[in-house]
Amino acid sequence: MSNNIYFTPGPSQLFYTFEEHLKKALSLDIPSLSHRSSTFIKIVEETNEALKELLQLPDGYDIYFLNSANEAWDRIIQNLVSERSHHFTNGSFSRKFYDFAIQHGKKSSITEASDGDSYTSWEVPADTELIGITKNETSVGYSLQETEIAELRLQNPNSLIALDIVSASPSVPVNFSNIDTAYFSVQKAFGLPSGLGVWIVNTKCHELAQRKKLTTSIGSYRSLPNLKKFGDKNQTPETPNMLFIYLLGKIAQDMLGVGISKLRNDTAYKAAILNQSIEDHPLLSHFVNSKQHRSKTTIVAKSGKSNELIEFFNKKGLILGKGYGNHKGDHIRIANFPTHSKESIEMICDLFLQIK
Amino acid sequence: MSNNIYFTPGPSQLFYTFEEHLKKALSLDIPSLSHRSSTFIKIVEETNEALKELLQLPDGYDIYFLNSANEAWDRIIQNLVSERSHHFTNGSFSRKFYDFAIQHGKKSSITEASDGDSYTSWEVPADTELIGITKNETSVGYSLQETEIAELRLQNPNSLIALDIVSASPSVPVNFSNIDTAYFSVQKAFGLPSGLGVWIVNTKCHELAQRKKLTTSIGSYRSLPNLKKFGDKNQTPETPNMLFIYLLGKIAQDMLGVGISKLRNDTAYKAAILNQSIEDHPLLSHFVNSKQHRSKTTIVAKSGKSNELIEFFNKKGLILGKGYGNHKGDHIRIANFPTHSKESIEMICDLFLQIK
Repeated sequence: MSNNIYFTPGPSQLFYTFEEHLKKALSLDIPSLSHRSSTFIKIVEETNEALKELLQLPDGYDIYFLNSANEAWDRIIQNLVSERSHHFTNGSFSRKFYDFAIQHGKKSSITEASDGDSYTSWEVPADTELIGITKNETSVGYSLQETEIAELRLQNPNSLIALDIVSASPSVPVNFSNIDTAYFSVQKAFGLPSGLGVWIVNTKCHELAQRKKLTTSIGSYRSLPNLKKFGDKNQTPETPNMLFIYLLGKIAQDMLGVGISKLRNDTAYKAAILNQSIEDHPLLSHFVNSKQHRSKTTIVAKSGKSNELIEFFNKKGLILGKGYGNHKGDHIRIANFPTHSKESIEMICDLFLQIK
Repeated sequence: MSNNIYFTPGPSQLFYTFEEHLKKALSLDIPSLSHRSSTFIKIVEETNEALKELLQLPDGYDIYFLNSANEAWDRIIQNLVSERSHHFTNGSFSRKFYDFAIQHGKKSSITEASDGDSYTSWEVPADTELIGITKNETSVGYSLQETEIAELRLQNPNSLIALDIVSASPSVPVNFSNIDTAYFSVQKAFGLPSGLGVWIVNTKCHELAQRKKLTTSIGSYRSLPNLKKFGDKNQTPETPNMLFIYLLGKIAQDMLGVGISKLRNDTAYKAAILNQSIEDHPLLSHFVNSKQHRSKTTIVAKSGKSNELIEFFNKKGLILGKGYGNHKGDHIRIANFPTHSKESIEMICDLFLQIK
C-alpha cells in the first residue's frame, strides 16, 4: 500500500491486517478451491461465527453473503415486500432504498426529512409490510439512536424493520432484537475492498419469504429460501466472492481479538476529539444540528473552504472524504472506522489547528 | 501461492500474472479509491477496451460488470424476458438457466438432451423472446459449434439469443454477431478469484429492456437502462468489485500481449494432446461422443477409476476436477485455460502413461 491514509467513508483505508491475511489466503490457494469443498464450507462457517459474535446477533438471525448494500435493497424488496414499504429518509442512501422499492413497482411511502435533519414524526401507514431505516446515513453523518429504533419496534409490531448498518457496524452497538433484517457492505467499517455485502435476516423474514413465494416470484438463486437452503449447510447457492468471505472472517476475528468494547470505546474517543476540533475551528461547523444524532463513524463538517481543506490534507497523504452528492464542495466527511488509529485521528485534529 | 496447480474447471489456477497485478493494485490503493474518481473511471474504461479487443466484440456491444454468471441469468430474465424463453440444455449449467426462468415465473420451454449428448432438433417455439444456449457446458465438456449458432441465428431472426461463454471465452473464437447477449464469470478462463461476472449486450437488448420497462419492473440498480446510464460514462451504478475489475483489465491486457491467435492455438494444442491421452488410455474414455462437440477448455473423461486417478494426481500437487453433480465418481474434468502452460498439460499426459 502507498503511504496515504484514506479517511474516506468507504471505500476507505484497508483494515491494518488485510495484507497479511491476503498473503495467507494466496498461500492457502483460497481463490482456486472449489466452493463446495469442505475447506470452503469451514471458511463460511468461521466467517459466520465471527460475525455473529462480533455483531452480538441474537439466536434466530442468519447471515448470507451478497455483493453490495445495493443488492440487499434489491433482495429485501424482492423477498419481503409485496405491496408497500415505508422509508425514513434524511440523506441519499436512505432515499435510494425507497427509490429501489418504486423501481420494483411497489406502492411505497416515505417520511422525508431534509438531509441531516431529525424526523418530526415516526408515524407509519397501517398496511406497511416493511419499514426501512438507516443506522448511519453515510452521506451526511446522521445516526439513529437505539431508543428511537426500540420505540419504532414497539409501535409497529406487525411490520418488518430493515436497518441499514452500512458504516455503523461493528463500530457502534445495535440491538438486533429490535429489527428483523439488516445489511452492510464490507468496504466501510470492515476495511475490505468493495464487492461483498452481508445480509442478516431473522425467522420472521424467512417465514414471510416462504409465504410470498406461494403466490409470486421472489427471484432465483438469491431468494431467501434458496439462500437458507444452502446457508443451513454453510454453503452459498452460486460460486461467491470466496476470497473476500475468507478475508472478512479473518478481519472479524481480529476485531474480536481487539475486543468489541475497546473497539467501540476507541470509536467514541476518536469521534469525540474530531467533534471537538470541528467545534473549535473557525472554518468548520457540524452539519447535523442534533448533537445526539451525530454519527460516530462518519464525521461530517460544513465549511466554505472544504475543497481547500481537503487539498491541504491530501498533500500530506491524508485523504478525507468530500461531501456526497449536492454537498460536494460544502462538506468534509471523515471516516472513523476501526482501522483508523487514535494516533492518525489525533494527527488530523492537530493539523486542523494549523489552518486558520 | 502453494506449489499446487489447479486444473479444476473453475475456480481454477490463478492467471500467472495475477499476484504481480495484485501487488501493484495495492501499491496504487485501488481498493481505497472512490468508485466515482477519475482514476477508477479510467480503470473501467481500460478494462472495457481490453475485453472488447480480446473478445473481438463488434460495434454496438456493451460490457457491464455483475458478480457471477448466476447473476447474469437473473438479470437477463428480469430485463429481457416477459413471457417465455427457450433453453437448449445438455448439462447442469444450461439447465440452471431454464430453472431460473421458471423461478421468475416465466412460461419457458426446453429442448433437453441427455448430459453431453447432441441436440436432435433445433426447433424453437414461435413466440420465444430469448433463446438460451451454452458455448461450453462446463459440467460435461460439451461445446456448441459456431456453425450451429449461426444457423440458430438464421432460423430465429426475431428472438434474442443469449450465449453462455463461461469457461469458453477468450480461449475459443465466438462470433458475437450471431448472438445478442453473452456472459461469463472470471474464475474460469480468466484466472481470477470468483466474485465478478461480465455481461455483454447489444443494442437490441437495450431497446427491448427499455420497452419492457414501460409496462413492468425490470429491477433496480442493475436494470439494463441503469447499467447503460452509468456504463456510458465508464461508471457503475453501485460501488462494484473495483479490485477485480482492475485485475480483469490487466489480465486481459496480458492476454492481448500474448496474442489471441497464439492463446487459441495453444489451447487447441493442449486440448489435442489431452484428447489423445484419453483415447490411448485403457482406463479412460471420452464422455462426449461427438468428436466435434468436445470442449477444448474443459476436457472430460469417463473412468471407472476416476477417484483413484484424481488422487494419484492430487499427491503430485496437480489438482484435477471431479465430475459435476451426478457424474462425481465417474468423470475427470481437466481445465485447459490460458494460464495452464503447455508444459503442465504435457506433464499430465506423461503421468497418465504411468497409470495402467
